[in-house]
Amino acid sequence: MTSETQMRQAMQAYIDAFNVSDPQAIADLYADDATVEDPVGSAVKSGKAEILKFYKMAVATGAKLALAAPIRTSHGNSAAMAFDVKLNMPEGKAHIQVIDVMTFNDAGKFTSMRAFWGKSDMVMTP
Amino acid sequence: MTSETQMRQAMQAYIDAFNVSDPQAIADLYADDATVEDPVGSAVKSGKAEILKFYKMAVATGAKLALAAPIRTSHGNSAAMAFDVKLNMPEGKAHIQVIDVMTFNDAGKFTSMRAFWGKSDMVMTP
Repeated sequence: MTSETQMRQAMQAYIDAFNVSDPQAIADLYADDATVEDPVGSAVKSGKAEILKFYKMAVATGAKLALAAPIRTSHGNSAAMAFDVKLNMPEGKAHIQVIDVMTFNDAGKFTSMRAFWGKSDMVMTP
Repeated sequence: MTSETQMRQAMQAYIDAFNVSDPQAIADLYADDATVEDPVGSAVKSGKAEILKFYKMAVATGAKLALAAPIRTSHGNSAAMAFDVKLNMPEGKAHIQVIDVMTFNDAGKFTSMRAFWGKSDMVMTP
């Protein structure tokens, strides 16, 4: 089983790769047959090609991620983290308040990601 | 479907009921056939009686909950929140860094709760 330390490092690597606009590095954190549901309640993306395409689009928006609290792990093969997606909108600065939950395989790769955020979790930054 | 506002209110009610040491009020937020996995990776508790027993024990520890970031909802029937469980230990103040993920039925009751925290997420409070 992937250790808590390994899971925490992979979650941090996800934030860091996003913030240096490296969608390939993000996709490399995923297992080949992984799934992404972002936001929870939307169509699930499946497999490396779809996942890479998704992150190319996400990174191209110029959004940046900032942890809102320390990364949480678990007693199983899952970890979770609360962060803000910082956006520059025509109306000003905004952020989306998100919690991502990842599951891991024994190689320490993400097998799934689910992003919890609703329409009301997108707010103008004071 | 339960609205984002209703989900956010139920999540806040959970925090508030815990902090006034009211395990029955917490259990009442759950559907009759709900499940609780706390921490993720441990045995799942199932049904109101087991859930009430669990919260009676949890509240009796004197622990208090404090949100670490605003509650997140989703585009589906789920919400998530990052919080700290504040504990008074013989060694001093400590806290467990937790993310809870709840699913909801159409009546706005929790059908499941999963608590993400690992051994390394329990830290001494500076």
